[in-house]
Amino acid sequence: MHFELSAVQAAEKIRSGLISSVDLVKACLQRIEDTDGAINAWIHLDGEQALAQAEALDEIRRKGLPIGPLHGVPVGIKDIIDTCDMPTQLGTKIHNGRQPEHDAVVIERLREAGAVILGKTVTTEFAYSHPTTTTNPHNPAHSPGGSSSGSAAAVAAGHLPLALGSQTGGSTIRPASYCGIFGFKPTRGVISRRGVLETSRVLDQVGVFARTLEDLALLGDTLGSYDQADSMSFARPRPHLLEGYKAEPPVDPSLAWIELPFNDLLSDAAAAGLAEVREVLGDRVEVIPAPKSFVKVIECHKVIHEYEIAGCLKAEIENHWDDISDTIKPKLESGLATTEAQYHEALTMVGGAENYFSEFFNDYDAVLTSAAPGEAPLMGSDAGTGNPIFSVIWTFAGLPCLSLPVMGGDLGLPMGLQLVGSAEGDDRLFRTARWLLQQLDENAQDNE
Amino acid sequence: MHFELSAVQAAEKIRSGLISSVDLVKACLQRIEDTDGAINAWIHLDGEQALAQAEALDEIRRKGLPIGPLHGVPVGIKDIIDTCDMPTQLGTKIHNGRQPEHDAVVIERLREAGAVILGKTVTTEFAYSHPTTTTNPHNPAHSPGGSSSGSAAAVAAGHLPLALGSQTGGSTIRPASYCGIFGFKPTRGVISRRGVLETSRVLDQVGVFARTLEDLALLGDTLGSYDQADSMSFARPRPHLLEGYKAEPPVDPSLAWIELPFNDLLSDAAAAGLAEVREVLGDRVEVIPAPKSFVKVIECHKVIHEYEIAGCLKAEIENHWDDISDTIKPKLESGLATTEAQYHEALTMVGGAENYFSEFFNDYDAVLTSAAPGEAPLMGSDAGTGNPIFSVIWTFAGLPCLSLPVMGGDLGLPMGLQLVGSAEGDDRLFRTARWLLQQLDENAQDNE
Repeated sequence: MHFELSAVQAAEKIRSGLISSVDLVKACLQRIEDTDGAINAWIHLDGEQALAQAEALDEIRRKGLPIGPLHGVPVGIKDIIDTCDMPTQLGTKIHNGRQPEHDAVVIERLREAGAVILGKTVTTEFAYSHPTTTTNPHNPAHSPGGSSSGSAAAVAAGHLPLALGSQTGGSTIRPASYCGIFGFKPTRGVISRRGVLETSRVLDQVGVFARTLEDLALLGDTLGSYDQADSMSFARPRPHLLEGYKAEPPVDPSLAWIELPFNDLLSDAAAAGLAEVREVLGDRVEVIPAPKSFVKVIECHKVIHEYEIAGCLKAEIENHWDDISDTIKPKLESGLATTEAQYHEALTMVGGAENYFSEFFNDYDAVLTSAAPGEAPLMGSDAGTGNPIFSVIWTFAGLPCLSLPVMGGDLGLPMGLQLVGSAEGDDRLFRTARWLLQQLDENAQDNE
Repeated sequence: MHFELSAVQAAEKIRSGLISSVDLVKACLQRIEDTDGAINAWIHLDGEQALAQAEALDEIRRKGLPIGPLHGVPVGIKDIIDTCDMPTQLGTKIHNGRQPEHDAVVIERLREAGAVILGKTVTTEFAYSHPTTTTNPHNPAHSPGGSSSGSAAAVAAGHLPLALGSQTGGSTIRPASYCGIFGFKPTRGVISRRGVLETSRVLDQVGVFARTLEDLALLGDTLGSYDQADSMSFARPRPHLLEGYKAEPPVDPSLAWIELPFNDLLSDAAAAGLAEVREVLGDRVEVIPAPKSFVKVIECHKVIHEYEIAGCLKAEIENHWDDISDTIKPKLESGLATTEAQYHEALTMVGGAENYFSEFFNDYDAVLTSAAPGEAPLMGSDAGTGNPIFSVIWTFAGLPCLSLPVMGGDLGLPMGLQLVGSAEGDDRLFRTARWLLQQLDENAQDNE
């Protein structure tokens, strides 16, 4: 079925004329119609608008005009990312019907790559912690995670091959884990955030979802660009993810298992899955203690996130306090109560964490850890969209992170293995991830 | 000598560690010191600033961080293109010392590609027709052309392999022709003009210079990107120039020689050179009459250019009239006297020209013509920076144009052959150009 194609497969078939973008988009729309009643991944989806884009891209190909790397391939967009032709409502009724004038830079990069902007996916309120009504495609009683709830669920449900999310704590890696798909958050500064809702100048990062590792690389390569208007964007070449994906490691990679202070949160199934992976990898995994500073990093992350989001949402807090959820009100209040001195103190830790990992990755290709504490929590439970703790340290340090859907949990729910790489070593991270997937595959075959 | 390397060669040597970016930049700076006294191609050149960039790029490579396609390769920037770390003075004393806060988008693309922004090259006043003091590297008694005078002269003199210019009439193709190097103006809308001095919203386009065709393709590929903030930028994939350059034409290309109403302006040497090229190409060239509308196009180009530049320079006209050259004052007055109705009438011709050529290129791969009426005029002559007439029609229609340095004129001055391709067919234009160069080479060898 067309909707099951990976982005790489779909782009190749469209390029060679075996299918049209219209065929593919129709199949995706049908799949959404068939399944989204129970999932609720989409907040804006206009089939005619999507098909008009697909027709225009098919026409470009027929005319022999230039073809992009994602030509005719649909991409879902988290509803905190501005689109000039679709509403962008930030997951809150405060911004009902909000229509941006300009595309975000990532949308410009997608249009330039020939992608179809299929529609906008459900986000939690302001990409923070209040759960949405989106359900987990593997079991509708469970959460898909958040804040990129709709993007992760849509890709997992086969609605389309690719989607964009964001991550300030664990908003890409965790939903990827819960939904059993691949998730990737690049090095801070690779992808411009201009036109994406700002909730934290320091911590906000764009993330991506796909059902194959190669698709993540393809999508990531199209999104990266230097943008002086984003204070975190760097004026240097970007990692080449597809090249990294296709490269063979010169020697078997070396992985670090860190005894994280929150490893005791792991579910039984997650702990067992991780143990199994470590057994397969044998002496390629080195166990090391966590530096004491990690606990401080988690505190500093909270200080910066709360302080900055309270500043970013100043207008909403002042004018629409009653329309803000009770889930995030206490966090915003905490942010408002944070002093500048506390904030500045926390900021100094960012450079410290960056320096620590800059040395660290001289010895290791990647950190091996869990993408989340375990299986997706139940809808409506106190756990909300789940605990982002397994992402916080790497997000804080701006490191590239991957969630690989290779572990199975209780109740048939998937779980992600997380790999974390060095800053600007995103390409090496993809090389390491592909190698790791091969090791697991070979081991599975040996055991058959 | 390092300074003689093409950009492709230099990037390859830097990538493989045979030379460093510092080596290359030092060689370029030395070459400039040795020769620029007579040429005067540079308006801002700070050797330490350039070397600091080169050192940073060498350090990136040493650390194993991502490498860009122009890693460590110096590029010269026409002084109407904003740079956040170098003054951008627009060729007029009115803006002496002007320091932009932000990089132009093309500068962002270059930094992301790993290029060294070597310095700013001399432009004519507001990229218009008043000559500069820059001389032609082939003969200092002659003009290098304009308005991208310094960029063309610097590349021709071996100061560096690549430079950026712009074209509103013939400001890239003509200086490339006079200076005996390759020049390229892509399809309108491929390259964003944000951060480039606006003189005409409709006609302004970014152009590039190099000493090889492949270098032009490499540079052009790095510069294209969709930017909604530029009203002419289009939301579609860009042509892949290097792919076009490397492709073999499926059949021998078909070229159109149009009997242009201004062909009688050609110098004897230019007419002879063109006849020789046409003889080599034989029946691959078809002679066709010029549509009557071409004369109207030239008038409309003038109306739009004068009207728009007078609007763009409103502040300068009102506050600094005495500091504007007598060369452009009459044109600005003409623009101020142009009515909105005349302007709107001229605008309608743009779509007409685009439509005409959209049909035209179903039958031909490229138009073959001259890049300029002939050899570079003498410095200080009434001809100024030369007549842009051989570029006006294609610039007006937004078509991609190449100047190929394959003709020789009187006094040892070079002349360019111009190829014009279909809108967004820039890749095919490079394919055709490479084929044409091969035909000329083979013919030259046969005659040896």
